[in-house]
Amino acid sequence: MAEISLGPRPYAVPTPLWIIGTYDREGNPDAMAAAWAGIANSEPPCVVVGVRSSRKTYENILENRCFTINVPNTTLAPQADYFGIESGREEKGKFEKAGLTPGRAGKINAPYVREFPLHLECRLADRMTMGSHVVIIGQILDVVADESVLDEKGRPDIKKIDPVIFAPVMQAYFGVGENIGKAFEIGKEFKDKKDPE
Amino acid sequence: MAEISLGPRPYAVPTPLWIIGTYDREGNPDAMAAAWAGIANSEPPCVVVGVRSSRKTYENILENRCFTINVPNTTLAPQADYFGIESGREEKGKFEKAGLTPGRAGKINAPYVREFPLHLECRLADRMTMGSHVVIIGQILDVVADESVLDEKGRPDIKKIDPVIFAPVMQAYFGVGENIGKAFEIGKEFKDKKDPE
Repeated sequence: MAEISLGPRPYAVPTPLWIIGTYDREGNPDAMAAAWAGIANSEPPCVVVGVRSSRKTYENILENRCFTINVPNTTLAPQADYFGIESGREEKGKFEKAGLTPGRAGKINAPYVREFPLHLECRLADRMTMGSHVVIIGQILDVVADESVLDEKGRPDIKKIDPVIFAPVMQAYFGVGENIGKAFEIGKEFKDKKDPE
Repeated sequence: MAEISLGPRPYAVPTPLWIIGTYDREGNPDAMAAAWAGIANSEPPCVVVGVRSSRKTYENILENRCFTINVPNTTLAPQADYFGIESGREEKGKFEKAGLTPGRAGKINAPYVREFPLHLECRLADRMTMGSHVVIIGQILDVVADESVLDEKGRPDIKKIDPVIFAPVMQAYFGVGENIGKAFEIGKEFKDKKDPE
């Protein structure tokens, strides 16, 4: 099959739809959608997120040195999408307009989205200006889940969380599909194979 | 509903299952699974990936200053999982054992997985040691897709790519589910609402 070069572009899948929660200097809660994001490190646990330096959210992160990462479910994807459409500079009441409730995070000075099933509480650990965006590393001080998304062992279940996947270029959102197998397990058949020759 | 604190841990969903392709000093292709990864920046387009400094892949990235990010489809998830089980230090023939073919990237000195539907060709742009992992920023020099995963306008279609989602803690893989709406569109109803009061 033919391989087609698409050129240098910020494209890969899957990327998440996560909401960054911050307070401004006056304590107003703001929320911004981010898809340039992921887990970055295990010990200490860290997230990474790219934020344009022009954003109110970036200003707020520098002010408070902390932020939340909020994981919406597919039911609340429209509200999460709205957080990516409206600027916190122009609209101070984004939570109210979305019909969502800002809670105060337990470990940091930042708001989280109470209606979302999961959020991370992060302190600003490092940052690198890369061009359009500042790549921000946040150390995760706590992960907080709604009880309803935990399995019988108290572990977060991705199907219960029902998070949103963002597809760049297509500019569309997707849910999580079928379980296709256990990690560090389904590939064992290849490890156990004898080396070639 | 009750909110449960799970403590500081590297947990968020979705995270990707991507394969990092590198050559070692002798030109042997290596491939490693990574889930601590994402897009980091738009201009220039960059990816971010966390790699333990003890890994062969990290040594190879420092040697060649470049790497590929390969996106497996769900059919090849077992092979991709294998790349996360076996160390490139102990097994030089990982591609062969997985039954996959290393191709030489067009823009950089790194191998890509020919059977996967999409890969990114990246040069090492920056890195930060965060603890367990080194957070690596790669500038994307090209995105290469198999023709079969492009839509009629030549854009990569996430459902045709059929990428793999990794759920940390659960240690399981999932496919992409239903299309739940257009980005920067489904949230417009909230923007158009009159401000409260």
